[in-house]
Amino acid sequence: MRTATILVQCPDKKGIVAKVSDFLYTYQGNILEVDQHVDEEIGMFFMRASWDLDSFGLEKDLIAAAFQKEVADSLEMKFELHFNTQKPRMALFVSKLSHCLFDILSRYYSGQFDVEIPLVISNHLDLKKVVTAFRIPFYHLPIDKTNKAEVEKQQLDLLQKHKVDFVVLARYMQILSGDFIKEYPNKIINIHHSFLPAFVGAKPYHAAYERGVKIIGATAHYVTEELDAGPIIEQEVARVRHHNSPSDLVQIGQDVEKVVLSKAIKYHLERKVLAYRNKTVIFY
Amino acid sequence: MRTATILVQCPDKKGIVAKVSDFLYTYQGNILEVDQHVDEEIGMFFMRASWDLDSFGLEKDLIAAAFQKEVADSLEMKFELHFNTQKPRMALFVSKLSHCLFDILSRYYSGQFDVEIPLVISNHLDLKKVVTAFRIPFYHLPIDKTNKAEVEKQQLDLLQKHKVDFVVLARYMQILSGDFIKEYPNKIINIHHSFLPAFVGAKPYHAAYERGVKIIGATAHYVTEELDAGPIIEQEVARVRHHNSPSDLVQIGQDVEKVVLSKAIKYHLERKVLAYRNKTVIFY
Amino acid sequence: MRTATILVQCPDKKGIVAKVSDFLYTYQGNILEVDQHVDEEIGMFFMRASWDLDSFGLEKDLIAAAFQKEVADSLEMKFELHFNTQKPRMALFVSKLSHCLFDILSRYYSGQFDVEIPLVISNHLDLKKVVTAFRIPFYHLPIDKTNKAEVEKQQLDLLQKHKVDFVVLARYMQILSGDFIKEYPNKIINIHHSFLPAFVGAKPYHAAYERGVKIIGATAHYVTEELDAGPIIEQEVARVRHHNSPSDLVQIGQDVEKVVLSKAIKYHLERKVLAYRNKTVIFY
Amino acid sequence: MRTATILVQCPDKKGIVAKVSDFLYTYQGNILEVDQHVDEEIGMFFMRASWDLDSFGLEKDLIAAAFQKEVADSLEMKFELHFNTQKPRMALFVSKLSHCLFDILSRYYSGQFDVEIPLVISNHLDLKKVVTAFRIPFYHLPIDKTNKAEVEKQQLDLLQKHKVDFVVLARYMQILSGDFIKEYPNKIINIHHSFLPAFVGAKPYHAAYERGVKIIGATAHYVTEELDAGPIIEQEVARVRHHNSPSDLVQIGQDVEKVVLSKAIKYHLERKVLAYRNKTVIFY
Repeated sequence: MRTATILVQCPDKKGIVAKVSDFLYTYQGNILEVDQHVDEEIGMFFMRASWDLDSFGLEKDLIAAAFQKEVADSLEMKFELHFNTQKPRMALFVSKLSHCLFDILSRYYSGQFDVEIPLVISNHLDLKKVVTAFRIPFYHLPIDKTNKAEVEKQQLDLLQKHKVDFVVLARYMQILSGDFIKEYPNKIINIHHSFLPAFVGAKPYHAAYERGVKIIGATAHYVTEELDAGPIIEQEVARVRHHNSPSDLVQIGQDVEKVVLSKAIKYHLERKVLAYRNKTVIFY
Repeated sequence: MRTATILVQCPDKKGIVAKVSDFLYTYQGNILEVDQHVDEEIGMFFMRASWDLDSFGLEKDLIAAAFQKEVADSLEMKFELHFNTQKPRMALFVSKLSHCLFDILSRYYSGQFDVEIPLVISNHLDLKKVVTAFRIPFYHLPIDKTNKAEVEKQQLDLLQKHKVDFVVLARYMQILSGDFIKEYPNKIINIHHSFLPAFVGAKPYHAAYERGVKIIGATAHYVTEELDAGPIIEQEVARVRHHNSPSDLVQIGQDVEKVVLSKAIKYHLERKVLAYRNKTVIFY
Repeated sequence: MRTATILVQCPDKKGIVAKVSDFLYTYQGNILEVDQHVDEEIGMFFMRASWDLDSFGLEKDLIAAAFQKEVADSLEMKFELHFNTQKPRMALFVSKLSHCLFDILSRYYSGQFDVEIPLVISNHLDLKKVVTAFRIPFYHLPIDKTNKAEVEKQQLDLLQKHKVDFVVLARYMQILSGDFIKEYPNKIINIHHSFLPAFVGAKPYHAAYERGVKIIGATAHYVTEELDAGPIIEQEVARVRHHNSPSDLVQIGQDVEKVVLSKAIKYHLERKVLAYRNKTVIFY
Repeated sequence: MRTATILVQCPDKKGIVAKVSDFLYTYQGNILEVDQHVDEEIGMFFMRASWDLDSFGLEKDLIAAAFQKEVADSLEMKFELHFNTQKPRMALFVSKLSHCLFDILSRYYSGQFDVEIPLVISNHLDLKKVVTAFRIPFYHLPIDKTNKAEVEKQQLDLLQKHKVDFVVLARYMQILSGDFIKEYPNKIINIHHSFLPAFVGAKPYHAAYERGVKIIGATAHYVTEELDAGPIIEQEVARVRHHNSPSDLVQIGQDVEKVVLSKAIKYHLERKVLAYRNKTVIFY
């Protein structure tokens, strides 16, 4: 079935649900899913609706304009419209660690992720063999203090050339510049290996070990300019004990990281995430 | 704020969300929450909506009839309508174990449960002091093989006299008859001390110990005639290890039981549960 | 069965397990439990052993001196010796919130905590009725900026008079002075309503809401002079979603707090906790 | 560091810990880890100890005989002795599903599993490419009703030829015969895609969906003749909701399966598992 999904946000007022569902009903749309949320602290309304496109009485390419005119204009509404007929294109940035990459490729292989992966970019060669075994182009772009701006330019060119929709930093150990991030707002997903906001920055497992915590975690978030401070998409934790060394924490944590990152990718792919004010609404 | 909540279920077809939200919009209803679910396996539609009653253009007592006529009739829809101005009345059935009772009374005391508790019924005297310390009437109705039908009659009379809306079996160790259950369909909540459907029946912790499971659990469900087989409302688990004796499991399990039961009560109180075909839809 | 439990820590070297178990074997001690841990980062050895006292060939009162001479002296070992014949005496400090208090009293009532509670101290009267219903003396000591030192003096006098072994701050909202804390090193257990080290200090649930985390938590720790920075005994978490308001987080969090605090109390009561270098070894 | 690990079980009596640790101490063994457990229901003692072999005063090949004579004989003790110098050899049996295979190979690739994988056996060709990309021999042995005994013979021959220590059924959808199982007692690890003992047998996710459970799970266990009834090594769960279809459950469950199976493999590899009476003692 061909389906459409709309994500909307606007100031809260009466009748928004009715107006949106009326719009769909008018054109014979069969609503498959609808979710709604009001943030009462700030008076904002959020909604996600998906419907059967096959029987819809409006051409796919006319929907956005019609919705803008008939619904969005009067409600100061921002919206995104997606169709399941266009497969999202995801770029992976990796470094040396393989666990997240394997997990993502495994889901790609088995069809769990409905996505294209036109390229993988890395500052190291370690994972080249793994990537090319999946017949995905691998670009090796070594990075250091002197060439960062230039390399980011090359990366952006590759992303554009490959028509990439969003980027996943699968334990890519470099910090992206503000200029890079601006090109993909709420479209770069990072996995941080701690339960944010605890242990921001480098070596979080060692910091967790030093503090003697009983639970460690991982956090998938959209990348913003402030390090490890962007909107959180997903978090998960694992229990640790006194006998776990720092390297145990690294290993236990990797199991959490890969699951959290893959969940965040899945939410993003299924158009279930709405970002606002450094937070996310996730209609799962 | 005075609010109304409606829970509906009907065969799935196009436009149901639009029709329900139109109804509310027509009478100036400000929708506070809306959730919807379609069970595609059986083609059933479920929805929950709540709205501000203060500004609603229809008298509280006229809503049901208007909704029936304007929406439900044409859709073969069943619905329940609730108002937050009427506090639900909950009866507790207990036996000797105190942990679930304490947890419920603690939430009642602190205002976390918006409920009246007009009475507690027990077949033992052990918990009388606890109950009366909260100024709740305690009825001691001992039960044995010979007097079960008669005692159930007394219990039902008490429930009616106290205008009880729903019953919670807080580790009440007796099996209710089919006749009793029929009086409160999907309105009797039981806590079973296992992760159903594993370990149905008596002594589940001992059975779990014998089987050597690494995780134990508890299950809150609506009571139906078949033992421990009613619609599941909530489940939770706890990890156990080889060094945990059967009595450790009992103790670890009690922490799970009380949390699961209180969550189920909360979902029920907040009108978030729709039961159908021995399952539940829970819009939390 | 009368049992003894010994907790030891010393610099790691060969043969410590053998020496300790030899000591017990020499006096016909039947070891019931033994656990051991080496922190390889700092070269420290930790051990916990418990044994049957009934058949032990050494008088209870002579054990400490014998162990000191025969084992500890040559190993620079520190140890604690406990007997299950002496019930620990626990003081509770509370303020206005009832959930942790109820949870503790519920376990006290049902015999799950093998402890004496000679008194409860509070700076408010709100919980007096609850406490006295359990026939526990309640001391109301209001505290403000002007009288803190004086009130702490009164508190310490009460603790001494009641021969209190350890103190539990069950959501007691006051910060204890360094002088107070020094009297009960690693013997004051606090529950902090966040997943430390995230959200130290006041209003952690509101901070968590602002940050948009997907998981909240609670932390039980021994109190040290630095706020919320003492050795962590236990932590637990709960999942939250975008639709949870700050007051939802408070409520969801309270379920976590009470379970975490009670677990920490239980570990402490069962002599399973060894504190060192701002961390804990917990032999559960 | 070269280390030795011993796993022992025997009827419980006084002084076993002392005798074992004395044995090690006598030969200058530096104990690295020691764990012990008494099952009081059946009066059995279990222990695991590992020590530094480099400084041990007994040749590696003489340890077993010395321990038998000096310790085990007098205590009716059964024991296993392992050295970290001999890498265990693990065979994988797979069918069509790739998630567990990828997870295992990912850990093998990154060095998280200290193991040799001399071969993978499958009744289908689907995963051949994946396996051979890791340079592991892949044997395709199609199986049907008519050739089962014969194929099992071939499988056993391959296992012997490749000196396999233990077998992992990574979603291998065939039931092994009792004759096969006898060759590898407590050395065949299976992953069952339910929270055993709930939903034994085929299609557990569909059964879970039908029953309306709120939590699903997976179980790793040693294979015994009775289907899905062998000693449980590890279990884990994931929360599901009413909107999850049977195929959602399959996908959510696969994340649990792969983590549970890999944990069980890790415990087995690290010699932390002692099986007895259809249960396991796991010293993690």
